[in-house]
Amino acid sequence: MNNQSLNPKLTVFVAGAEGLWTIQRNQPSIGPALPMAAKLTVTSAWPPKSGNWALAGVSSNARYLERKEKTSLQAVQAPLGRPEAKCAALIPIKKSDAWWELTQEERRHIFEAESHHIAHSLKYLPAIARHLYHCRDLGGEFDFLTWFEFAPGESDRFEELVDNLRSTEEWKYVVREVDIRLIYSGSSLK
Amino acid sequence: MNNQSLNPKLTVFVAGAEGLWTIQRNQPSIGPALPMAAKLTVTSAWPPKSGNWALAGVSSNARYLERKEKTSLQAVQAPLGRPEAKCAALIPIKKSDAWWELTQEERRHIFEAESHHIAHSLKYLPAIARHLYHCRDLGGEFDFLTWFEFAPGESDRFEELVDNLRSTEEWKYVVREVDIRLIYSGSSLK
Repeated sequence: MNNQSLNPKLTVFVAGAEGLWTIQRNQPSIGPALPMAAKLTVTSAWPPKSGNWALAGVSSNARYLERKEKTSLQAVQAPLGRPEAKCAALIPIKKSDAWWELTQEERRHIFEAESHHIAHSLKYLPAIARHLYHCRDLGGEFDFLTWFEFAPGESDRFEELVDNLRSTEEWKYVVREVDIRLIYSGSSLK
Repeated sequence: MNNQSLNPKLTVFVAGAEGLWTIQRNQPSIGPALPMAAKLTVTSAWPPKSGNWALAGVSSNARYLERKEKTSLQAVQAPLGRPEAKCAALIPIKKSDAWWELTQEERRHIFEAESHHIAHSLKYLPAIARHLYHCRDLGGEFDFLTWFEFAPGESDRFEELVDNLRSTEEWKYVVREVDIRLIYSGSSLK
């Protein structure tokens, strides 16, 4: 067989006893919780050898950005892995069947015209780095995993960002959301 | 681990010595070929136990259809598995990085305004059933697998459909395409 290892471009978040990130909080925001765990590892290996749970996603093409928005985001976004960004959040969400039955134009309308998802996000860049992983087509429990990284001093701004997202029209289509907060605890410099 | 079996919604096309479909033709149209094989099985099991090659994809949400188009398509489309539809084609394609760097609106413009992908497709419904499987986010060799089913009497119309697609602006972004034609050879009624 020429493709036994199905997905070489996976990013896998494994929660268990080991990992460079310490889980400080793991709370369901909408729907069922994820099991508790002490640490989180970010890897590309699937299936994981150990752990309490794992969530996998892939970086994919942008679905909603228009050209001007893409250019604006690219101009200000921050990379993951900055040494000062010792705080992180992993927010897995699942959207309703009603969302996925909408057409692209209908989803885009809710996403930006009504919810200002992109415009609001821009306000927090480059302080809060974020990366979106798609997982709906991978058949897991969630549709998206968003990973955020920021310096401890940006924590209040991060709460504002999350509160903002949760108050949008778009978020009415979220049927499951878990909010996981982490602190970098690797022994070496980040 | 709660999700070792990564993807319960996979559709897997396995080419090898066994299967209800006999492979009549297996030709690269753009880029490298796929290995030859006698038969094809359609299954949901991954990884396959045997076979020369396997391609996996998932049914996903529509990316380009607008509401009116979605309604028109749903009104006339045919299901897979019709007893008379003993001919099939499996056409895996991969699009270029340039395609995936385009924004949604730019892709949609090429897809429909320039290439009339949806409008042309409607002409062949319900005679030629088709189903699109997404696989770019699964990390395989292709981005999409399209499976077509039609009665032997529709073969000329099918050639027309395929020629039509290949002449479009959209197809300039296709960097790999293999054209696999099949005949149903199950011993029981289809």
